[in-house]
Amino acid sequence: MDTQQMPADADASGDCAFDVLAPRCPSRPVLEHITGRWGSLVLIALRESPARFNELRRRVGGVSEKMLAQSLHALERDGLVAREVHSTIPPRVEYSLTPLGARTAGKLWELVLHLEDAMPQVLEAQQHYDESTAAA
Amino acid sequence: MDTQQMPADADASGDCAFDVLAPRCPSRPVLEHITGRWGSLVLIALRESPARFNELRRRVGGVSEKMLAQSLHALERDGLVAREVHSTIPPRVEYSLTPLGARTAGKLWELVLHLEDAMPQVLEAQQHYDESTAAA
Repeated sequence: MDTQQMPADADASGDCAFDVLAPRCPSRPVLEHITGRWGSLVLIALRESPARFNELRRRVGGVSEKMLAQSLHALERDGLVAREVHSTIPPRVEYSLTPLGARTAGKLWELVLHLEDAMPQVLEAQQHYDESTAAA
Repeated sequence: MDTQQMPADADASGDCAFDVLAPRCPSRPVLEHITGRWGSLVLIALRESPARFNELRRRVGGVSEKMLAQSLHALERDGLVAREVHSTIPPRVEYSLTPLGARTAGKLWELVLHLEDAMPQVLEAQQHYDESTAAA
């Protein structure tokens, strides 16, 4: 894997202000992992309990095997998801949130709860928007 | 939790439990608008103050004209961003957060702050992961 560049304002003292608005800040790809189409739903689904791959696939409706594997891989590399292999026959592989992953999923969950609450208002706005652009 | 269906508990009374884990729930595309690669950064950038298109493009490092226009359009339709045309010559178009957009951006901001704080831990995890997979 390539070494990501640090934000330009990382100075000689080693201080580094991470800033997702800066294009080369390494926080940006991580934000994409945790808010991406599937990454976010994987984190949310793992809040419930650890799960094996197929169980997780059931929880995250609509995810393909490939996308789930990719999302889990990125989240594991970021230290947000732990992959544990139990030495049974056949081996049992279980995914869970790390403590950092659990805190991250908690913040994401607050956003999702807010969104689910706001949905009636959002749907109304969409309808209003579509009617006014259709009329124009 | 049945995650496979559109909120099946949308009943005759019009009640509907939105669930982002359900593939056809209308909350899912909205989650993608607010957490997508550019949508999230646009919301964060607008927290600072309303802005014209080009100013916003400067704030969101790396965004193309096309992607910014698409993100703004989706967020406007969702009722999160307001587009105001001031009748000057030439007309001045300004984007701002609606009250719902401001609440949404606030939740997103908490997630981003958490992530920016967590970045040293994430970078350490990435390095550890890369070393252990290189050694394997």
